[in-house]
Amino acid sequence: MPETKTLASWIISTRIDSVPDDVRHEARRALVNYVGCALGGSHDEAVDIALRALGPYSGPATAAILGRSERLDPLHAALMNGISSHVYDFDDTTPKNYMHPTSPVASALFAYASVHPVSGRDFMEAFITGFEAEMRIGNAVYPAHYDVGWHITGTAGVFGAAIAIGKLLGLSEQQMIWNIGLAATQAAGIREMFGSMAKAFHPGRAAQNGYGGALLAQAGFTAGEHGLEGPRGFAAVQAAKYDLSKITAGLDTDYELRANTYKPFPCGIVNHPTIDGAIQLHDEHHPAPRAIKAVRLRVAPLVMDLCNQTNITKGLQGKFSVYHGAAIGLVRGKAGIQEYTDAAVNDPDIKYVREHTTAVGDASVTEDQARIEVELTNGETLTKFVEQSLGNVHRPLSDEQLNAKFRDQAVLAIPADQAENVIEQCWRIDQLSNLRPLIESTIPR
Amino acid sequence: MPETKTLASWIISTRIDSVPDDVRHEARRALVNYVGCALGGSHDEAVDIALRALGPYSGPATAAILGRSERLDPLHAALMNGISSHVYDFDDTTPKNYMHPTSPVASALFAYASVHPVSGRDFMEAFITGFEAEMRIGNAVYPAHYDVGWHITGTAGVFGAAIAIGKLLGLSEQQMIWNIGLAATQAAGIREMFGSMAKAFHPGRAAQNGYGGALLAQAGFTAGEHGLEGPRGFAAVQAAKYDLSKITAGLDTDYELRANTYKPFPCGIVNHPTIDGAIQLHDEHHPAPRAIKAVRLRVAPLVMDLCNQTNITKGLQGKFSVYHGAAIGLVRGKAGIQEYTDAAVNDPDIKYVREHTTAVGDASVTEDQARIEVELTNGETLTKFVEQSLGNVHRPLSDEQLNAKFRDQAVLAIPADQAENVIEQCWRIDQLSNLRPLIESTIPR
Repeated sequence: MPETKTLASWIISTRIDSVPDDVRHEARRALVNYVGCALGGSHDEAVDIALRALGPYSGPATAAILGRSERLDPLHAALMNGISSHVYDFDDTTPKNYMHPTSPVASALFAYASVHPVSGRDFMEAFITGFEAEMRIGNAVYPAHYDVGWHITGTAGVFGAAIAIGKLLGLSEQQMIWNIGLAATQAAGIREMFGSMAKAFHPGRAAQNGYGGALLAQAGFTAGEHGLEGPRGFAAVQAAKYDLSKITAGLDTDYELRANTYKPFPCGIVNHPTIDGAIQLHDEHHPAPRAIKAVRLRVAPLVMDLCNQTNITKGLQGKFSVYHGAAIGLVRGKAGIQEYTDAAVNDPDIKYVREHTTAVGDASVTEDQARIEVELTNGETLTKFVEQSLGNVHRPLSDEQLNAKFRDQAVLAIPADQAENVIEQCWRIDQLSNLRPLIESTIPR
Repeated sequence: MPETKTLASWIISTRIDSVPDDVRHEARRALVNYVGCALGGSHDEAVDIALRALGPYSGPATAAILGRSERLDPLHAALMNGISSHVYDFDDTTPKNYMHPTSPVASALFAYASVHPVSGRDFMEAFITGFEAEMRIGNAVYPAHYDVGWHITGTAGVFGAAIAIGKLLGLSEQQMIWNIGLAATQAAGIREMFGSMAKAFHPGRAAQNGYGGALLAQAGFTAGEHGLEGPRGFAAVQAAKYDLSKITAGLDTDYELRANTYKPFPCGIVNHPTIDGAIQLHDEHHPAPRAIKAVRLRVAPLVMDLCNQTNITKGLQGKFSVYHGAAIGLVRGKAGIQEYTDAAVNDPDIKYVREHTTAVGDASVTEDQARIEVELTNGETLTKFVEQSLGNVHRPLSDEQLNAKFRDQAVLAIPADQAENVIEQCWRIDQLSNLRPLIESTIPR
């Protein structure tokens, strides 16, 4: 059976009751992390600009945007949620294919559930279905797809949003096949945008366009029925090499949610081992910034491919600079949202250490590892080898660490007591009779 | 200078006064053809469905849709114009890269000009700028881009829409660079959708998303500054081989509008030589359908790649069947919109001849040519070799033929006298002080 049809059939028949408990808990963790990120980014300039530019084109303003008091139509709200939740690059990541899987799916779902009554069970069912489906599609085309320059969060993400919304709409198998086709033909987003606001636009547009495609499919708008596997379908067009069996093998038994990870630092995950090691060196030795003569990094080759930005002046660029990651770890002993502002990038001490940092790609260093050597002006040399980076699948953030991360971000949008109320509802999301009170409690009062 | 910056600078500085008269006339021809197609398709089921599905999400209903009485916000109106104008595959085509270049650009511009005062001169300036830019971008990635399965009308089209709207918005060079980046990261649409409504969705979404991207860029939403030429930019990601010099060589002297063509038949242009020849055989011999024993076609190999559909039951599929093209030419002696309905595809005589037609790809046959051999039951054999297909760049439709094509389609939306009024305004579009009366005169009264 063609993969598109097999997947459509699986989407329609999936029930929350058959999802194992550990997967459901991981889905809750993903949503806690997501809502925190959406609140944290909700007042970023990128969201302000998008609201100013597109707000006047919104339909009836019935939908809530997480963390903001403005209302928009749900398609535009999905766009804004997507930008908010990804703008600080702090959302979840799957090391298997470098996708940020929750943002496109949850951004559409929270917008939908702010205007239609949706129970926590139905919400979770749609979320898990969309998440698993988009991850499988991403896995099928990774790594060729990513390597050539696609931002997989945008390209695979539009499937996730479309499928999750299609699930809530109760699409028939035929409609779901069209829905997948409409997602395939809207898959977009290129890595050339990394370091600009357009990167966060990708999961936003994926959420909005996937949602819109599901509405079209529901109304009978036809699409090619082999959107995934056809000779001119998503896989053939967007990947030089692909393996379609990854879309359908082990459905109902293998859950990609189990391989999800949550970032301790708001930047590209490949920088994390370097930052982690730099923070450890800071905490152990407290070197004065001007006492640092040279920092030498040995990192996985992919780091040099993704995060080789030098001569940076903007906070956003810092996320794509392994040099900046090393500098903030050594100078400040932390790497939170405040370390990726324009001010932090231009902080003289950080700039000084950053400009004394060099890096080489080394194929013997894995993407979870980093070797750091800090040469001090007194002749001493500090070294650190990070074998498993904090937040990776072998050293996951605990639920309590996720709560702490949530709180740090949420207070950028709402008072601390209100944030506690949101987080409490997120952890028992499957028991909520309607998502709307949770969503409304993210709105600044 | 990077291509994105060079192109942005050219877009901003281009003035209608420097465009040669023959190019301006070709622009008028393109717009006459476009408006006719938009009116002809405006009441197709695909438009009805899209309106039903997405209308409730429209912003303030200030914008007109060509040929319809409903109003939407201009972004949604751009989407609907794009679907209308391409749904019968009757819009213009550039044989150089198989793009349908006018639909994405004009669909956005007519939506914009229905809500903002735009003079005919400014409209033409924006149209020509968007058209030339998207064609150059398409040329740079053609044929590798098209061959792998991209629908270039969607992918290059989003640049055309973004650039034309950006031109009317008066974007600065920096904003135009972001605008091009936002288009690059929204470029989408795959050929797997051919034969479904989703094909016509491509220029529509390109118009809507390009327009939206221009609004974001105007408001300061940043994007990568090397959207076209960057190592993860549009060309590198969407084409295995490309030539960026085609974007910038001969700007201001070489106009792609001169190579535009207008279809005499509402289907894929590669079928045209076959249809043309079949109509000639019909007119010369009037063979009775059941007197036809076998039809044998020798066509360009691309025809077999694009239009090899057999066992068809839907009008839309007929557009992608060279067999159907031969059959309608031989049976009806014409190939208008009425020959691509579900009824025509299931007409017993047409079905009979179609199912007795075979085709082979032959590298010695160009894409403007076809060899047709009709074997009759009485033993006679009729043959026809079409050397230059009607409507191609060497046998262009005359202005009067374009008028006739316009009238045939326009009456599907508005009365004949109203259609005459529209066509009269289209031919003197550059002299109009405001586009709005022209647009309003396409609305059914």
